Amino acid sequence: MKSSPPRISVAYQGERGAYSEEASLRFFKKGVELRTFRTLPEVFRAVESKAVDYGVVPIENSIEGSVTETYDLLLSSKLMVMGEVNLRIVHCLISNEGTKIEDLEAIYSHPQALAQCRKFLGRLSVEVYPSYDTAGSVRLIKEKKLVNAAAIASMKAAEIYKMKVLAKGIEDAQTNYTRFFVLSDKDSHPTNSDKTSIIFSASHIPGSLYKALGEFASRQVNLTKIESRPTKVKPWEYNFYLDFEGHRSDQKSSEALESLRRSAFFVKVLGSYPKAEVES
Amino acid sequence: MKSSPPRISVAYQGERGAYSEEASLRFFKKGVELRTFRTLPEVFRAVESKAVDYGVVPIENSIEGSVTETYDLLLSSKLMVMGEVNLRIVHCLISNEGTKIEDLEAIYSHPQALAQCRKFLGRLSVEVYPSYDTAGSVRLIKEKKLVNAAAIASMKAAEIYKMKVLAKGIEDAQTNYTRFFVLSDKDSHPTNSDKTSIIFSASHIPGSLYKALGEFASRQVNLTKIESRPTKVKPWEYNFYLDFEGHRSDQKSSEALESLRRSAFFVKVLGSYPKAEVES
Repeated sequence: MKSSPPRISVAYQGERGAYSEEASLRFFKKGVELRTFRTLPEVFRAVESKAVDYGVVPIENSIEGSVTETYDLLLSSKLMVMGEVNLRIVHCLISNEGTKIEDLEAIYSHPQALAQCRKFLGRLSVEVYPSYDTAGSVRLIKEKKLVNAAAIASMKAAEIYKMKVLAKGIEDAQTNYTRFFVLSDKDSHPTNSDKTSIIFSASHIPGSLYKALGEFASRQVNLTKIESRPTKVKPWEYNFYLDFEGHRSDQKSSEALESLRRSAFFVKVLGSYPKAEVES
Repeated sequence: MKSSPPRISVAYQGERGAYSEEASLRFFKKGVELRTFRTLPEVFRAVESKAVDYGVVPIENSIEGSVTETYDLLLSSKLMVMGEVNLRIVHCLISNEGTKIEDLEAIYSHPQALAQCRKFLGRLSVEVYPSYDTAGSVRLIKEKKLVNAAAIASMKAAEIYKMKVLAKGIEDAQTNYTRFFVLSDKDSHPTNSDKTSIIFSASHIPGSLYKALGEFASRQVNLTKIESRPTKVKPWEYNFYLDFEGHRSDQKSSEALESLRRSAFFVKVLGSYPKAEVES
């Protein structure tokens, strides 16, 4: 008898049919064991405790912006970013059979999904109910047999729960992407097409952010994202999250990081990982 | 008979007892006419249409970060920022008389307030329901006579609706402040202690953000905040929101802005306004 190799296990937040599930399958292909968790901190803890091998978490959306809870969790976690995924998000309005769009009184979904469909929702006269998950909202409407209600979720969620799609592509902009981080206990080896994510705190000197960015600009290291988050220690002081092109072991990147470490209050490297393809 | 002068009217999002109401009264003192609106876009529209004189909107919180909806509305609005308010936020857990904290099954509040109390909520075994307003959640619990439920809102909301305070100061950090913008059709005159807020889009050249910040750093203009928001036009391209010390008519500030206008894709000045005192 041959024993099959142990399957890779992947944690995500949400339920079957969640966009994070799609992102997990996009990154790991088939054959992985998917484990669902109710909250993002639970996903982090599952990977930290080695209950699973990887976690896949949303980091930003091209309409609504950063997923601030993920940013804050990255600050205190020891996990590293070993990959990224860009997923095209097409939101559907999903209901039980027999429900008509003109009869809708309530719409349920994750706050990020609701925010990405603000224009569409503004044209309907409905109450909007935020929930913890897109696919979970579909399940709720099915299980409670709600007739004047719909959920915003993926086509896949409609298929899984065998529900009706009232409208497709209801997001505010047709260029709606969510970027996910793949978390693990270590990051990835160089591939010649990498990105690196870091967190740093500039010291309280006028121009210190400018000086910090100069470490990258002067070495022609291209920044792809900058995000500020409150330190939560002192009001109106911020940590900065930077993504740049290159692997942290590259000569230019490692020199910039070394120099930044000398001037910044603190620097934390979240990891280097292969740049995701942009799906069209 | 003497006719009294027309009262100044101020719009805010939420209900009586909302933190935005407290911010409005802090800025305008007594004697103003307060007008409540259900959403932030409605507040913007009320000021734009001159239905009211001013609007007071939350822009960032020292724990949870930027109010992204306000940031996005500022991009397309013609309104200017003529003032700022820093309000110390003390959240209370508020219920009907007779409810005990150990019997709670549901907690209602605005998503920002819920997020600011994440640690406290994590210790309770309750369902959390996001709503459109803190004070409105108190009213809901009162009107529906919910017994195993509480709302997170201000002490003032508890007083207005004559409800019981189960716990006070439940926010994650004791240094919890929300900063508000006061909107009008024009900004403020120089006072020698001012701030200016702008939006700009860096052109797509590596190092262009660094170059833009250099216009300020090289003139010793101190940045107090930088925020990036998706352009919503092309994925992973961003507009930058900057706050800096000084009035836009100051020599240093106006030179920096003029120079930025030559290099940036676009620059929009949101306004100059007296710096708010930091309440302790």
